[in-house]
Amino acid sequence: MPKLTAAELQTFLAGHFPHVDDVGFRVEQVAENFAQVRMIYHDDHLRPGGTISGPSLMMLADTAMYLAIMGMIGPVTMAVTTNLNINFLRKPKPADVIAHATLLKLGSRLVVGEVRMYSDGEAEPVAHATVTYSIPPLA
Amino acid sequence: MPKLTAAELQTFLAGHFPHVDDVGFRVEQVAENFAQVRMIYHDDHLRPGGTISGPSLMMLADTAMYLAIMGMIGPVTMAVTTNLNINFLRKPKPADVIAHATLLKLGSRLVVGEVRMYSDGEAEPVAHATVTYSIPPLA
Amino acid sequence: MPKLTAAELQTFLAGHFPHVDDVGFRVEQVAENFAQVRMIYHDDHLRPGGTISGPSLMMLADTAMYLAIMGMIGPVTMAVTTNLNINFLRKPKPADVIAHATLLKLGSRLVVGEVRMYSDGEAEPVAHATVTYSIPPLA
Amino acid sequence: MPKLTAAELQTFLAGHFPHVDDVGFRVEQVAENFAQVRMIYHDDHLRPGGTISGPSLMMLADTAMYLAIMGMIGPVTMAVTTNLNINFLRKPKPADVIAHATLLKLGSRLVVGEVRMYSDGEAEPVAHATVTYSIPPLA
Repeated sequence: MPKLTAAELQTFLAGHFPHVDDVGFRVEQVAENFAQVRMIYHDDHLRPGGTISGPSLMMLADTAMYLAIMGMIGPVTMAVTTNLNINFLRKPKPADVIAHATLLKLGSRLVVGEVRMYSDGEAEPVAHATVTYSIPPLA
Repeated sequence: MPKLTAAELQTFLAGHFPHVDDVGFRVEQVAENFAQVRMIYHDDHLRPGGTISGPSLMMLADTAMYLAIMGMIGPVTMAVTTNLNINFLRKPKPADVIAHATLLKLGSRLVVGEVRMYSDGEAEPVAHATVTYSIPPLA
Repeated sequence: MPKLTAAELQTFLAGHFPHVDDVGFRVEQVAENFAQVRMIYHDDHLRPGGTISGPSLMMLADTAMYLAIMGMIGPVTMAVTTNLNINFLRKPKPADVIAHATLLKLGSRLVVGEVRMYSDGEAEPVAHATVTYSIPPLA
Repeated sequence: MPKLTAAELQTFLAGHFPHVDDVGFRVEQVAENFAQVRMIYHDDHLRPGGTISGPSLMMLADTAMYLAIMGMIGPVTMAVTTNLNINFLRKPKPADVIAHATLLKLGSRLVVGEVRMYSDGEAEPVAHATVTYSIPPLA
């Protein structure tokens, strides 16, 4: 069972990642090994052609995965990303992007998960990422 | 031989990616299948712990690779990232990060390269990425 | 709708990849953007510690993805793998491994999918891969 | 400095991975954070079209990285691959393939490296991989 609610994760995010919070992430759902995070549309995410930039999607994938982990283990450790692999599948329209982050393995040292990202209202994913976080040993 | 100089790439970047340019990228060197790009240190790149954030490094890797490609083929096509894989190796210090982007294959449809990123003045890389761009067919 | 049945894919595999067929792959299910493939347990897959070797799982991921694509587009083109990213999640037991390959994007030039692999009878995946195939232009 | 010579690594490989040894790997060079490994050409590596199969190249990348690690830390621990990302760059000819494995980070828990693979006598790589191994805690 998750240790934090969506509202608690939202507060945690704003407190620890002020710059990320500026971007406009909203924690929409938290469940067993899962978090759903919405990236609010903003002109800063655009790249030429009117689409959401790759770096914005990578930030979303990394953040959604982080929140899925914090939801499960609580905000107690300083997890760091060790690997992120992303495939860009379709040109996102200029709109919110919703990330579904699912943990595939919640180990004591490594956590691996996948993140599917969708333009708001679309059924086909715009991007897919797999992300690994390292959990430092307890002090 | 590259088709664009470092100065021409810098002008191209500012004209086409105004938001990226805000970040502070400086094209330092262009050569056969190679570009060196510096990300100027700015507080926006920080994450808790005083280190450069992962998303900032991913944006740097993506941009450096893009510039290495534009250097070789010229600013004629709308290349898009299809895959980016990054390994975070060491905690970067709060300083400029320099990316060395090297093309491994410059195909007519796909371009694959690797990017090594270093904290200014350090010999060991802080991150390593492989990036694939798709080159659209000519109209 | 798939263009080939599981039995037709099995015949195709045996005809075109005799060495792979020696390994013992069985096409168990084909559906829209999906293939399920079983790798029959054999001592050749073992590595020290009594577990299935990483290269065996990589071959399974690559093959299952290939079969999912052939199921959708038919055995007409010479698709080639351009990228494979795999995370090893849990130590597989010495038993059959079942791969679930799902296409995330079936483009005209690039096909991207993910493959989850399970030890026979287990609910948690032993490995997860994302695979990209390039589809050559029609002659 | 490496703790094992190329000859010692070759003996270690044959003793611990009899099936891999059947494939025909030859340790050609060991240096600081580096190993060069040759995969002897054999019909088993072929796939339709007369080229070396992707799984053979993945096995080579994984093995070369493993040997580069064993060279540095000695044959004392049971390292396991946690992530492998490979880009296939050019169609290999039916010939030996030589892997150059370079460690990018030799940590106490995670080791990350990259592997470039060349057809014998060719200057352009046929494939490029990044590989992460996990080093178990000492008992």
